[in-house]
Amino acid sequence: MSRTDRRTLLQAAAALPLSALMPTAARAEGTEGTPAAAPKPAPAKDVTRRLAHYLVTAGYDDLPANVRKEGVRTLLNWVGVAIGGSHHQTVDIAVAALAPFSGPAQASLFGRHERFDIMNAAFINGVSSHIFDYDDTHLKTIIHPAGPVASAILALSELQPVPGKDFLNALVLGVETECRIGNAVYPNHYDVGWHITGTAGVFGSAAAVGKLLKLNEEQMIWALGLAASQPVGLRESFGSMNKSFNPGRAASNGIFAAMLASKNFTSSEGMIEAKRGWANTISTKQDYNEITGDLGTRYEAALNTYKPFACGIVMHPAIDAAIQLRNENKLNADQVERVDLKVHPLVLELTGKKTPRQGLEGKFSIYHAVAVALVEGAGGEKQFSDRAVNDPTIVALRAKVNPVVTPGIKPEQVDMTVVLRDGRQLHRYVEHAIGSVEVPMTDQQLETKFSDLADGIIAAPMIRRVMDACWNVESLPSAAEIAKMSVSA
Amino acid sequence: MSRTDRRTLLQAAAALPLSALMPTAARAEGTEGTPAAAPKPAPAKDVTRRLAHYLVTAGYDDLPANVRKEGVRTLLNWVGVAIGGSHHQTVDIAVAALAPFSGPAQASLFGRHERFDIMNAAFINGVSSHIFDYDDTHLKTIIHPAGPVASAILALSELQPVPGKDFLNALVLGVETECRIGNAVYPNHYDVGWHITGTAGVFGSAAAVGKLLKLNEEQMIWALGLAASQPVGLRESFGSMNKSFNPGRAASNGIFAAMLASKNFTSSEGMIEAKRGWANTISTKQDYNEITGDLGTRYEAALNTYKPFACGIVMHPAIDAAIQLRNENKLNADQVERVDLKVHPLVLELTGKKTPRQGLEGKFSIYHAVAVALVEGAGGEKQFSDRAVNDPTIVALRAKVNPVVTPGIKPEQVDMTVVLRDGRQLHRYVEHAIGSVEVPMTDQQLETKFSDLADGIIAAPMIRRVMDACWNVESLPSAAEIAKMSVSA
Repeated sequence: MSRTDRRTLLQAAAALPLSALMPTAARAEGTEGTPAAAPKPAPAKDVTRRLAHYLVTAGYDDLPANVRKEGVRTLLNWVGVAIGGSHHQTVDIAVAALAPFSGPAQASLFGRHERFDIMNAAFINGVSSHIFDYDDTHLKTIIHPAGPVASAILALSELQPVPGKDFLNALVLGVETECRIGNAVYPNHYDVGWHITGTAGVFGSAAAVGKLLKLNEEQMIWALGLAASQPVGLRESFGSMNKSFNPGRAASNGIFAAMLASKNFTSSEGMIEAKRGWANTISTKQDYNEITGDLGTRYEAALNTYKPFACGIVMHPAIDAAIQLRNENKLNADQVERVDLKVHPLVLELTGKKTPRQGLEGKFSIYHAVAVALVEGAGGEKQFSDRAVNDPTIVALRAKVNPVVTPGIKPEQVDMTVVLRDGRQLHRYVEHAIGSVEVPMTDQQLETKFSDLADGIIAAPMIRRVMDACWNVESLPSAAEIAKMSVSA
Repeated sequence: MSRTDRRTLLQAAAALPLSALMPTAARAEGTEGTPAAAPKPAPAKDVTRRLAHYLVTAGYDDLPANVRKEGVRTLLNWVGVAIGGSHHQTVDIAVAALAPFSGPAQASLFGRHERFDIMNAAFINGVSSHIFDYDDTHLKTIIHPAGPVASAILALSELQPVPGKDFLNALVLGVETECRIGNAVYPNHYDVGWHITGTAGVFGSAAAVGKLLKLNEEQMIWALGLAASQPVGLRESFGSMNKSFNPGRAASNGIFAAMLASKNFTSSEGMIEAKRGWANTISTKQDYNEITGDLGTRYEAALNTYKPFACGIVMHPAIDAAIQLRNENKLNADQVERVDLKVHPLVLELTGKKTPRQGLEGKFSIYHAVAVALVEGAGGEKQFSDRAVNDPTIVALRAKVNPVVTPGIKPEQVDMTVVLRDGRQLHRYVEHAIGSVEVPMTDQQLETKFSDLADGIIAAPMIRRVMDACWNVESLPSAAEIAKMSVSA
């Protein structure tokens, strides 16, 4: 596959209007608290200050149990993808490029042995965690929330003592900040071309780092202002290494902002909402109620989701259905005569490649995705490897996959019938795929994903210990433990 | 003066529509090569690639003499303002905040004794050079071109050997890149709220650093793409430390982009012009001919200007007239009965403060500016100090200054009459103030400005040596000399 082909493929995926794939319930939540009619926008009054006030006063004890739990799951998922991506060529290049400029060896590079200063480490870890496009997603905004935030505060945790409860609180507040700010400008801001994970993400990093630095309200305002001054990322870069650059740079920019603010480097008082502030400059839509409404009671951080499969979300329902039927019926490839699936038009538009020859191409082939799911019962990175797309059994099976665009099928749905050689027909309709808000991944599924990603990168017994440390983060005396355990030998 | 007052003042200056102050000739040049009718926009074809191709092929020998000369003047002026601002509180704070994270001591902080890695050094030096708002200006776009570019490549020169000719070529190419990209989106991009020095500046830094790293064409495309992913700065931050943050961060972001690209960290092929690329995402106007038209024959870098006075450009004609009359007539304050000046409405709107009590307030007082210019024959930082605004002679004289808004007077003009006690009337009409494109500062005036700024920061004999090194940059075996000499003892 030529570079151009590869780029075209990846850009096709990038062009996908992900909002169209958002589960119905999530779409409804997108206008939470507002009727069908256009909502009356909240006045742009003290938005930055009110957010800053919330951030400096909100404590761990204020977090509802479900929010804490989702924060822990966000952490575990992020650590897994950061380790998993850590030896991708993109990361090797970034490490080589930045090593001559790094400050003291303050923080770990997940999955690797090098140590960088916390800003450069946060950048590298942010890149690692997004390189497979396999990280977490806030479906309302398509923000990948953990990258900018976890990368930043895990690095910081190695520089100063951060008790686990404080860490989790900061993680939640950071995610909350970026998703709320994202909500305020989505979809216009994303539609025009910004990579919202990088532009909103820098606020998340600054907020979370600022919280752990114990900034006062004025300093937090400045940290948010300096974050507003450093948006990162354009969608045009999707399909290149520049895409994973964006959450990484959002993480390091947020640390940069918070560190300066902590020494009283000033910014404007209203960088988010002022006439020539962030929201007005960077978007044609501004809904400030999304930022300041119901702070401390409504939690965007509770809506985080995790990809069960290492490919575009458009194929997830079909992979989910295939795995369910395989497992329930203990299917093997020889039994299968034909696989019929009714799909939304986007599925063929984006993933219609019939004969993938490289792993990456497999991510754009519904034929391969269904076949490999039936054979291996999974859809992880290993199922989209060169090995998998050239496996004779899978190649033979994918020729039997017949996707048919069918009116009435939504992007998040699939209707699959597996016709067996013995004449039986196995049927499965998926309303919401695994990994959606409605059907979240179980903790066990998150562990399996983590283990698959970390396998071969960190020692096997350590995989278990790192996962346990993530689950138990709230009881850790120091969150740095997680980073220190997540490195290669 | 309270913080709020201070901010209001500075914001008033920031709100100034500087394009209205642009000399008529410069405004005409803004549409150079195009008739009065709306120009037909150039197609968005290969803009990034054509720019990259130019950057990697353009050599020092291709530079016309006038462009070289202006490049040298740009350098000298920048070094002066970087040294001059180096002990401002803003810089002290930034140095304290970043010292714990800096890499090896690779590069000088101008006017100081610390050494940081090149990215952090470039940031600090970019902040220093803009803190007085006294740096260079490309009047078509209000970009302050040297900050992002000179900060970056002077730091780089200390890391790798850079002959003076290569240095000057890179400086010109960096300035050319940012000003051309600025032209393509100005004024819409600036009007909506972006601080164009930071958003276009990052391209200038990446281009200049990329040139010195000898990137190939593809790598230069990626460097520009990674630069496009890191725009810096919103106008809302004007009046806070965040304003000078912007050229500093543009400088360090550009190095970051070029260093990654030098190791083949990829970006899109068309980040400037693509549908969801930089220009379309960040501006409602895109004139790509400004970027790729007449490369190598039309030089924006030749249009750089330097502020003779340490205050908003709106007061420059009056200060210029006052100094001329003072020097020609050997005036002293006792002789003056009254000073009448006919001015554009913006002068009183922006600088109508009658009784400044602090130096900074003096920058917003036409009364003070004229009085101090008559008494001291200058308008530098020292003339806008707490000392100057409280000097009894100047305070007495400023009460005799009578600005009158007069139809027909343009913002760049003033008509001044000094009425003396002996009945004589001295008259001066200024069509274009010193420091404009039409009446550029002389080399001698640049030296006086430099010496005033560096006085007390670097040793007196060294001031002469640094200026000489700047004038002779093309014959230096290593441009690093300039940085190494520009530090405090």
